[in-house]
Amino acid sequence: MASPVELLSLSNPVFKSFTFWVGVLVIKMLLMSLLTAIQRFNTKTFANPEDLMSPKLKVKFDDPNVERVRRAHRNDLENILPFFAIGLLYVLTDPAAFLAINLFRAVGIARIVHTLVYAVVVVPQPSRALAFFVALGATVYMALQVIASAAF
Amino acid sequence: MASPVELLSLSNPVFKSFTFWVGVLVIKMLLMSLLTAIQRFNTKTFANPEDLMSPKLKVKFDDPNVERVRRAHRNDLENILPFFAIGLLYVLTDPAAFLAINLFRAVGIARIVHTLVYAVVVVPQPSRALAFFVALGATVYMALQVIASAAF
Amino acid sequence: MASPVELLSLSNPVFKSFTFWVGVLVIKMLLMSLLTAIQRFNTKTFANPEDLMSPKLKVKFDDPNVERVRRAHRNDLENILPFFAIGLLYVLTDPAAFLAINLFRAVGIARIVHTLVYAVVVVPQPSRALAFFVALGATVYMALQVIASAAF
Repeated sequence: MASPVELLSLSNPVFKSFTFWVGVLVIKMLLMSLLTAIQRFNTKTFANPEDLMSPKLKVKFDDPNVERVRRAHRNDLENILPFFAIGLLYVLTDPAAFLAINLFRAVGIARIVHTLVYAVVVVPQPSRALAFFVALGATVYMALQVIASAAF
Repeated sequence: MASPVELLSLSNPVFKSFTFWVGVLVIKMLLMSLLTAIQRFNTKTFANPEDLMSPKLKVKFDDPNVERVRRAHRNDLENILPFFAIGLLYVLTDPAAFLAINLFRAVGIARIVHTLVYAVVVVPQPSRALAFFVALGATVYMALQVIASAAF
Repeated sequence: MASPVELLSLSNPVFKSFTFWVGVLVIKMLLMSLLTAIQRFNTKTFANPEDLMSPKLKVKFDDPNVERVRRAHRNDLENILPFFAIGLLYVLTDPAAFLAINLFRAVGIARIVHTLVYAVVVVPQPSRALAFFVALGATVYMALQVIASAAF
């Protein structure tokens, strides 16, 4: 088995792929805040008194467009952040490169699709469910591999 | 002090224990989504128009069973995800193995108990508070050790 | 380029700075739970029947003081947790120490200010927006550097 030195080096294609997709997904997640802000300004829906742009506005919490983006964002927190943790540990188990790289790709692409069909252009189900389960399945697989490496 | 090479290797029992518990807690967290989905189908509570299974249903946001699982899930995001970050850095401070392994165990078991008494079978307080504070205390201790290692 | 051994050692000032700020921000995030609890007790706002301190109380979800702290806490999850992931990978790209250390400082200080002006003493805008965008900008910069290192 390779040592952690080699595993966490960008000359390891598995780590390189992981690094790339974490970077992309971090940017994607941070864009959700801007998407929420755009919806807040478009619908004049602000959650704090100090955010109100005009004395005529009141705080509002139930705009469906704002809430949709917030649900998509929360779903990212629930799924992408655990992937960051388990993905790094999975890299350290020295997995087969072909499989690992395609798992990272699957998570990265599925979570981008999830956002697009949830919060950008609403696409009927099961598109969102499919994107959700592809990323979930890949993450669960990595977690099981990590547990197996650590338990024996 | 051992080098990062040895610290992040599965032959280091501290890292091995950390890896195991991160794997278990990632699986536990991802199961919260499925628990939420089960509650949504049981109570016919869907947050998006495109999720409604029948034209007679309307979106609903206030089912107490769904919201209870969602609160437990959010509590995981607030407590387990910071543990993943600080736990890895704590491993890199080369702590005493006995203490570190038991801290990881404490967090892992306490957070599983937290979910059970919060979202699976509701157990009266202070069971949830106790589970919460065991994990919180262990995480704060690790964070203080990490800060001490980095500050001096 | 330095090897991961040296990069993840506390003798690397960049990693040392990252470690310090992760520790501080983890403590800061965990304190949000206590701040929420204080607001819950002060305003007698409890979300679960088993948490009610007196049989006269009912569950309540809309207290503005509790909700303000919860919004600040959620904003931490959305911004600080992705920073933990990308910050570690950024350290592994072996960045210039002066720049990297000041980026970590900027994120750390900006997120503490964000909490103070949002959830402790409400300060009029644009104070919160400024704190938010300083941390966001630094995190996006790190993510772009990480993607660039991994893509080429």
